[in-house]
Amino acid sequence: MTRSRLEKLSQKLREHHIEHALLCSLGSLRYFTGYSAVIETGPSPFSPLMGVLFCEGNEKPALFLADMESSEGLEAELDLETFASYTIEKPLAAVQDLTAKLLARLKKLPRSRVGMESEELPAALLEPLRASCPQLEFPDIASLLSEIRMVKDEEEVQAIREAVALCDLGQELAKKLARAGMSEVELFAEVRKGMEMQEGGRLPILVDMVSGPRTAQIGGPPSARRMEPGDLVISDLVPRHKGYWGDSCNTFVLGEPTAENRLFFSGIAAALQEGIEQVRPGLRACDLDALLRKRVLQLQGGYAHHSGHGLGVTWHEEPRIVPYNTLPLQAGMIIALEPGIYFKERWGMRLEHVVRVTEKGTEVLTKFKHTL
Amino acid sequence: MTRSRLEKLSQKLREHHIEHALLCSLGSLRYFTGYSAVIETGPSPFSPLMGVLFCEGNEKPALFLADMESSEGLEAELDLETFASYTIEKPLAAVQDLTAKLLARLKKLPRSRVGMESEELPAALLEPLRASCPQLEFPDIASLLSEIRMVKDEEEVQAIREAVALCDLGQELAKKLARAGMSEVELFAEVRKGMEMQEGGRLPILVDMVSGPRTAQIGGPPSARRMEPGDLVISDLVPRHKGYWGDSCNTFVLGEPTAENRLFFSGIAAALQEGIEQVRPGLRACDLDALLRKRVLQLQGGYAHHSGHGLGVTWHEEPRIVPYNTLPLQAGMIIALEPGIYFKERWGMRLEHVVRVTEKGTEVLTKFKHTL
Repeated sequence: MTRSRLEKLSQKLREHHIEHALLCSLGSLRYFTGYSAVIETGPSPFSPLMGVLFCEGNEKPALFLADMESSEGLEAELDLETFASYTIEKPLAAVQDLTAKLLARLKKLPRSRVGMESEELPAALLEPLRASCPQLEFPDIASLLSEIRMVKDEEEVQAIREAVALCDLGQELAKKLARAGMSEVELFAEVRKGMEMQEGGRLPILVDMVSGPRTAQIGGPPSARRMEPGDLVISDLVPRHKGYWGDSCNTFVLGEPTAENRLFFSGIAAALQEGIEQVRPGLRACDLDALLRKRVLQLQGGYAHHSGHGLGVTWHEEPRIVPYNTLPLQAGMIIALEPGIYFKERWGMRLEHVVRVTEKGTEVLTKFKHTL
Repeated sequence: MTRSRLEKLSQKLREHHIEHALLCSLGSLRYFTGYSAVIETGPSPFSPLMGVLFCEGNEKPALFLADMESSEGLEAELDLETFASYTIEKPLAAVQDLTAKLLARLKKLPRSRVGMESEELPAALLEPLRASCPQLEFPDIASLLSEIRMVKDEEEVQAIREAVALCDLGQELAKKLARAGMSEVELFAEVRKGMEMQEGGRLPILVDMVSGPRTAQIGGPPSARRMEPGDLVISDLVPRHKGYWGDSCNTFVLGEPTAENRLFFSGIAAALQEGIEQVRPGLRACDLDALLRKRVLQLQGGYAHHSGHGLGVTWHEEPRIVPYNTLPLQAGMIIALEPGIYFKERWGMRLEHVVRVTEKGTEVLTKFKHTL
C-alpha cells in the first residue's frame, strides 16, 4: 500500500526537479514504510533518529533502521539496512554509523538534489552529508510531504476508522464511569484501560480530561481534582492506533444538566452539525472555520483555537481549519471538527467529530453520539 | 537550584575555551531551567523544539520557550522569552520565529564559540545561524553536558527518590494484582492507575511487562497475552516524575515457585546484592559490569544487555555499566543495576535496584523487596 504513496512522492519530486529524498520524521517513516516508533517515553537515549528512508531516483527505496527497532509492520518492498544504536561493547555512536552508511550511497550520486525535512533532521547528520557531498543540494520538502499526505488512501481510512472506534469506546466509558468524588486521573485511567484492553496493547494517547472550572481552560491533562456534582467534564481523547491518530471530544455533566448546560450544549452540537453538513470538496478551510465561529458567536461566546484539523500519521495536520487557510477541501481528506465555547474562570464545552470528505458530501467516522 | 548547575556549565565551557551555549535537548532544558516537556504523544506538530536555552558569556541565561508551553516549574533566574508555536491567524512558523529571535542575540556577538547539541538541534535552526553569524563557531558539547549531569545534586536526589518510590508502589501492585487469566495489558493498566493516582496526574512510563515465554525476550510492552498459572512475569517500571526518571525491575511467578524458579531467582538476587556491595567511588563501570556478568555466568546463563546505567533527566545515561566503560564511579552518581538471565524461547528473569554512590559506600534508593 505504501507503493502508491511512494509513487505520489516521486511525481511530486519530479514536478519540483528534485531527484532524491532523505526522510526522517516519524510521520514520513510511518507513511512511506509502515514503521511506527514508540513515542511515549520521549527521545531515545541511544539515537536521535530511529530510521531514515532514502529514495534514490527510481531505485528501490532504502530504509536505514536503528538495530534495536522491530521490523514488524514494514513494507516488504524496501531495502532494509540497520545501523548500530544500542551498544554495550563500544560507545554509543548511532549518528556516526548512520552517517557513514548514508555517505556510502550519497557520495556516488551525480550533481543532483536530495529533498529532506530540515526541522526533523539533526544538524549532526546533515552537516557531514553537505561537507562530503558538495555536488548535492538539500532542499526542504516538508510542504510537499504535507500536500501528499492530505488525501488519505483506503488503508489509511481503515486505520483511522479503527482509531476513531477506540475513541467511541473511550467516550462511552468516560460517560458511564464518571462520578462525583472520583478524580480526573482515576477516570482517565479507567477510560484508557478499557481502550488498551480493546487494543490489546499500549496506546499512545493525547488527552484533555478536565472538570468543573478547569473546563474554562479549554483542556489539560487529568489532575488529582475530584469531580463534584453538577461539574462539566471535557473528555478529548486522541489515541494512536497502527500509527494513525483518532480524535474525539465530548462534554458531559455529572448529574442532571441545568437549563444553561442544555442551551449551550445544543448550540455547540448544532454548530458542529451545520459544519459537518457544509463539508464538501471545494469548500475553503477558512470558510468552514468562519462558519463554525459565527455559529458559536451567536451563543455570545467563542473559542481561541482552531475549528478543526486534518488527522493521519500526526495528530494535527493539513487541512488546518483556521482563519488564514484558503486551502480548498478535497475528497479523501479526513478532518476533526471541534467547535467549543469557554467562559473565563467559569466553564467550557467542546464537541468534536471526525469526518471524511467525499465527492458526495461528508461521511461521519465517529459513531459515538454526543450526550450531555 | 539550577544556578549551581549553570555554574558547573560555565566552568566546563571555560575549560574548553567555549564562551556560550545554545541548548535544546529536553534533558538539558529540564536540567538547567526546570522545564519538563510533555513527551507521551511524540513530536509536536507545531514546533520541532519546545524551547532553547541560550547562555551568553556571563549574562543571565535566556530561555526561548514555545508560547503554548507552561512556564510552571521554571527557575525564576532566567530571562524568559516566547516564540510563536501554535498559530491560527497565520501559518505555523515556529522555527522561523525562534531563529529570528536567536539571531537578534547571536549576530551581536564577537568572534567566539557557541557550544550546542548537534544531535538534537534541527538543521533548520543551525543552518541559518551559521549562515548569518560567520564570526561564530558551534562546537558540539554533548559529552561535556553528560559529564556535568553524572553527579546528582540534592534536588535531583530527592526527585529520583520520589520517582523510585512510585516504582516501589508499582511493584507492590503488580505482585498483588497479577493473577492467571488476566492479560498483561490489564495488569499494566491497574499498576499504572495506582501509580498515577499516587502522582495525582499522568506519568510518562517506559515499561516491560511480559509473562510466560515472553520473558525470554528480555522485555517488551504489555500485550493481550493472558497470564497462566506458573508463569514468570517480568515487571520493569520506569516512570518520569518532576522530569526525573525512576527505575525498578522485579520478576515473580504466578502461583507456587518451582525449585528451578527459586534457584535462579536467588542466584540473580545474590549477584545484584554483591554488585550493590561493591559499588564505591573509584570502582570502574566496566569492572562492576564484569563482576555482575561473572556471577550470572556461574548460573550457566547470561544477559545480552547492560548491567546498569545512570538515571536522571533521561532514563539511560552515564555512568553506563557496560563492558567498554572505564569511567570510575563517583560519589553522587545514581545508578540502576539490573542483572538478568534469559534462556532462549523458554524464560527469563531480571532484578533491578537503584542505588546512590556515596563516599561511605552505597545507599539503596529502592525500598521494595524483590519477592518471587
